[in-house]
Amino acid sequence: MKDNNDWIYGINTVTEVLTAGKRVIKTLYAAENTRNKRLKSVIDIARSKGLQVKTVDTGFFNRFPSSAHQGICASCVSKELLTIDDLYAQAIKKTVTPCFLLLDQIVDPRNLGAILRTADCGGVSGVIIPEFNSAGITPVVEKSSSGASEHIPIAMVTNIKHAIKFMKDKDIIVIGADIEGDISLWDQRLATSCAIVLGSEGKGLRRTVRDGCDVLVKLPMKGVVNSLNVSVAAGIFIFERNRQCSKTNIP
Amino acid sequence: MKDNNDWIYGINTVTEVLTAGKRVIKTLYAAENTRNKRLKSVIDIARSKGLQVKTVDTGFFNRFPSSAHQGICASCVSKELLTIDDLYAQAIKKTVTPCFLLLDQIVDPRNLGAILRTADCGGVSGVIIPEFNSAGITPVVEKSSSGASEHIPIAMVTNIKHAIKFMKDKDIIVIGADIEGDISLWDQRLATSCAIVLGSEGKGLRRTVRDGCDVLVKLPMKGVVNSLNVSVAAGIFIFERNRQCSKTNIP
Repeated sequence: MKDNNDWIYGINTVTEVLTAGKRVIKTLYAAENTRNKRLKSVIDIARSKGLQVKTVDTGFFNRFPSSAHQGICASCVSKELLTIDDLYAQAIKKTVTPCFLLLDQIVDPRNLGAILRTADCGGVSGVIIPEFNSAGITPVVEKSSSGASEHIPIAMVTNIKHAIKFMKDKDIIVIGADIEGDISLWDQRLATSCAIVLGSEGKGLRRTVRDGCDVLVKLPMKGVVNSLNVSVAAGIFIFERNRQCSKTNIP
Repeated sequence: MKDNNDWIYGINTVTEVLTAGKRVIKTLYAAENTRNKRLKSVIDIARSKGLQVKTVDTGFFNRFPSSAHQGICASCVSKELLTIDDLYAQAIKKTVTPCFLLLDQIVDPRNLGAILRTADCGGVSGVIIPEFNSAGITPVVEKSSSGASEHIPIAMVTNIKHAIKFMKDKDIIVIGADIEGDISLWDQRLATSCAIVLGSEGKGLRRTVRDGCDVLVKLPMKGVVNSLNVSVAAGIFIFERNRQCSKTNIP
């Protein structure tokens, strides 16, 4: 059972959580006697927000992988995920042409974190992940997202196929990224409301998920290995959409 | 001093090295009693090429990080890096409009590996890395590149600024990726011979490197975090070039 407590760590992640102000930080811990200016600056931000900062010796950070903690961590109340209805409602308040990412079976937390970071940079309206067969929003994901997981709206659904149906019912075009897609990314109209479906790196989209998409779009490959990291693929899709939107004056 | 021996590991990486046939494999080691079909298939490829496969117990793989070895590794003669002259000569034999990546201070081996993988997928002519202040082509890089490091031509130079001058002397436009760039990526003509310069994630391009570029190009950001992973940025630049080339019939 989940204990409703998350550890977050690393200078960027802790800074983002502090500045986003969306999560309750229970306690903040910093390495004692630090000379790191960036670390000192995070501590100053925390204190300016009235948070108590406990100084601890570096052994305290052994609970985190390698040196990714950078001498700072915090225990927080777990991030609250949205329902797909709330995610959608929030999105259309901001834009009439939202863009969603639907992630199917992205189990590697570093990949999920990298996708959330890319989605934030690209202004994606929200990311939808399934409850099972997916990395959750864990500390590794938060760290890999460089804190973007604090800002980008995330919804959890029981089944990604239901999310596809939800989007179609809202007249949002559902675009599956698939190496054997029907048309190339450059020829697909993206400057509209859309949901981009990305599958697991090794296997791509499952057949039943592919079948649910309105269109399958491929990225023309020119190499030998020809399998992009899923966060790189996400970046190329999202920014190609942004390019098309910028040419048609869609914000 | 370098001992001219590399360990490579992981199913994809070993498969790519075997199929590329560019490196001398000294010995291949596989976990005994494996039932993994993909692993068995790599062993079959190795045997079909007349290589001896030593079976070892799983403790043998403790030298590699976590479980990334997937029960297979090989000791190889180190990958030979090209000179910039040779890289260029090879590139223009294949195309009159080559595209190079110049990497400045990419010290994280996972990032370098991910860039090499992306460069291979995007058909980049070659990647140039500096001798100092850069990750070398280490086993972690090879593994992170999913074996793409075997295929993509790589040159090492003493100083990336010399590589910039080299490119300019060949009338190749040198494009720096910079968050404070003069124009947006979508407005930069890329369907030509070009060299894209990418800097370290934390700091971007150094001033002296920026000053050497013909043009500084930015990727319009729409989020809160607004710093892309460098391999994602590389992918967006490379595939935007491919898009422009496809519209102007450049191969």
